[in-house]
Amino acid sequence: MTIAKRRAQERLATRARILDAARTLFLRDGFENVSLRKIAAAIGYTAPALYSHFPDKRALILQLCCEDFALLRRSLDIAKRTDDCVERLRAMGRAYVRFALEHPHHYRFMFMTPWAATEAPGDLPPEHGDPDHDAYAFLRRAVEECIAQGRFKPEYADVEGVTQVCWGASHGVASLHIVLRDDPWVRWRSPRQTAYTLVDAVINGLCDERAESAHARLAKPRRTKEAP
Amino acid sequence: MTIAKRRAQERLATRARILDAARTLFLRDGFENVSLRKIAAAIGYTAPALYSHFPDKRALILQLCCEDFALLRRSLDIAKRTDDCVERLRAMGRAYVRFALEHPHHYRFMFMTPWAATEAPGDLPPEHGDPDHDAYAFLRRAVEECIAQGRFKPEYADVEGVTQVCWGASHGVASLHIVLRDDPWVRWRSPRQTAYTLVDAVINGLCDERAESAHARLAKPRRTKEAP
Repeated sequence: MTIAKRRAQERLATRARILDAARTLFLRDGFENVSLRKIAAAIGYTAPALYSHFPDKRALILQLCCEDFALLRRSLDIAKRTDDCVERLRAMGRAYVRFALEHPHHYRFMFMTPWAATEAPGDLPPEHGDPDHDAYAFLRRAVEECIAQGRFKPEYADVEGVTQVCWGASHGVASLHIVLRDDPWVRWRSPRQTAYTLVDAVINGLCDERAESAHARLAKPRRTKEAP
Repeated sequence: MTIAKRRAQERLATRARILDAARTLFLRDGFENVSLRKIAAAIGYTAPALYSHFPDKRALILQLCCEDFALLRRSLDIAKRTDDCVERLRAMGRAYVRFALEHPHHYRFMFMTPWAATEAPGDLPPEHGDPDHDAYAFLRRAVEECIAQGRFKPEYADVEGVTQVCWGASHGVASLHIVLRDDPWVRWRSPRQTAYTLVDAVINGLCDERAESAHARLAKPRRTKEAP
């Protein structure tokens, strides 16, 4: 390994440590109570060393967002293997649940922590609305396909609204569990299984049963039609 | 008004101010970063004045929990008016959504903020498991009734699991909206309407359609049976 290559690797590793420390501190103390200096101190760096990676807190937050949301989007890629749009929706819901439960710190940072107005990202980046890079757009496209194929009951015709319903369904159980898993008030069932059950129940509720049985007939291999 | 009565009222008002300030600070700075002294300073009190209401932080947190969860439980009372258990479940889901959206600070404190282990309540109070005082138990009882009456599909037979599914459904959209309402990434639909749609879709998905149409026939007034 060349010295330049080793240095580049070390720089990337440092950057990852900074981002991890920042996520932890933001969650513990709130966005407005965490300075770059505090993040640097938490991992034994000087503030100037940290500034060489991120010019300010806003840049750091944007980078953290960028990386965490890209990780989520990649986690949903497994759903691409499924041709049927309803089954793709189910696979996406399940993959989203696994992401939330397997990365609770990322998940809390992304979807459970209110952004201070001053830290909110400004202009939307080019990824916004691109299903290959934007998890919301990826989900939205599957919902759009289900509606276009007449797979949902007619009252579920608003793509944006139904996308938010599906997102809420995937978020519901996982987010409760991340926060309240140690609460003795509730005898928790397996969060993954419960979250899957919620995703399934919503998909069942959205789907038009007649359309689904017609679809199941069409999807069967031809030889079953020849059976008596 | 007697002096004693006025003093008692003032004391209650002070107590309410302390609890409101505590909720706000806990949400902003995290449980572990808030002392009783900090809460006192936020409302212009001395620490000893605050100690006369709450001996320590733990007592204050328990009281805040107690009051907020009682308010939630009372908000669900509207569902009592509904005899049919499936409709009661729906009314409860909707009332829960309204509570969350109308009291976002309470809601974040109750269901979106991880408890530091040291602050967790110890023994469960007598309200635990009592449907008249415990919102989870109230929901659980409606689910139990739906299952006992054969209103759900046979695969939804685990009372505890289905209760958590219904809770997740009511929590999903409202909690996303509380945190991300100002996020320009998403074109939000009406959170209340979207959350209601999620609750309805889950209930539809849980219900056994044959049982529901049989139930609808039974529920009709008798004279329709005499029609041709």
